[in-house]
Amino acid sequence: MAINYPNGKKFSPPKDQPVQKKKKDVSFSNRGKTLEDELNETNSFYLQRGLAVIHKKPVPVQIVRVEYPSRSAAVIREAYFQAPSTTDYNGIWQGRYVDFEAKETEIRTSFPLKNIHEHQVHHMADIIRHGGLAFLIIRFSSLDRYFVLPFEILENYWKRMASGGRKSMTLAEVEEASVEVKPGAFPRIDYLSVLHQLMK
Amino acid sequence: MAINYPNGKKFSPPKDQPVQKKKKDVSFSNRGKTLEDELNETNSFYLQRGLAVIHKKPVPVQIVRVEYPSRSAAVIREAYFQAPSTTDYNGIWQGRYVDFEAKETEIRTSFPLKNIHEHQVHHMADIIRHGGLAFLIIRFSSLDRYFVLPFEILENYWKRMASGGRKSMTLAEVEEASVEVKPGAFPRIDYLSVLHQLMK
Repeated sequence: MAINYPNGKKFSPPKDQPVQKKKKDVSFSNRGKTLEDELNETNSFYLQRGLAVIHKKPVPVQIVRVEYPSRSAAVIREAYFQAPSTTDYNGIWQGRYVDFEAKETEIRTSFPLKNIHEHQVHHMADIIRHGGLAFLIIRFSSLDRYFVLPFEILENYWKRMASGGRKSMTLAEVEEASVEVKPGAFPRIDYLSVLHQLMK
Repeated sequence: MAINYPNGKKFSPPKDQPVQKKKKDVSFSNRGKTLEDELNETNSFYLQRGLAVIHKKPVPVQIVRVEYPSRSAAVIREAYFQAPSTTDYNGIWQGRYVDFEAKETEIRTSFPLKNIHEHQVHHMADIIRHGGLAFLIIRFSSLDRYFVLPFEILENYWKRMASGGRKSMTLAEVEEASVEVKPGAFPRIDYLSVLHQLMK
């Protein structure tokens, strides 16, 4: 069983997401959870409350070899990670198509733009063109701070990098261009609550 | 590296999609392509023409063991198929959120409803509630016929089955409740062209 993806490329997941460092267990800190965990919890909350239907897409893998042991589940024995051709999350909220990528960094002073692939930038630009909402959720893990950055602004900084400029956004640039979301309990990262501010 | 999915279940892909039988090579017949191939081509066409941004989601797998050989890509050595918690395809078209599942059958006279999982039915019901479009694309492979069936009608037949009724829709019921799409060259299966008829 082989699955062909449009780009056909094999992909190694980036190694630039360092192992979570030990943290003080202050109230509402992320407590060793990944941003993905936090967003999955948040999306579950939204789904259960009927507020939105937003899911993370599965990790794309190219499956090369599958074994079918008798009396048990099929086992994938050889597969490779592939570069995602879209963003990780999409869904519907208040009748609108919503699409975003989520990235975390341990760096305290800037957000590295190499975290965002070129085809993801093209994908989000397409989404905006078709009337959807596209944005980036950034977690500065060491600072326990979360930002929702509209795609249109990300795109400007990404183009600056692509034309030879700075390879990151400074924290001050992120603060200036984003809406900050304070982490809570239920939901964990209430990013939908700030989207109205981005839609102005 | 282990990835946890919400339902945590291991999943064997259904074996009820028989190997494609040899066919007469009539003009515009599916020529041994799977419905997935045809829809990927169609979605590529839509994307290139700026008509819609619709992608198939990756197959969900639970990754248990990954090897990192030096100087080459990471290899997944143990992973399992998982039951999808949503449908396979979603995206945006004319500003609207679009969500669908695609199924093919070799049977000439009916469409088996066991092809649709219960959580997929709940997912599509949620999508409708939030103002999105949800539907099923059915290919009767032996007949070379394609239908777009609105979710609301699928749901009625699915409930009939769940309450002990017939486990399939007859071809006549599908013909009655769906809009048929004639396969073509570019795009291959122009399902967007019939959505206006379903939105009445």
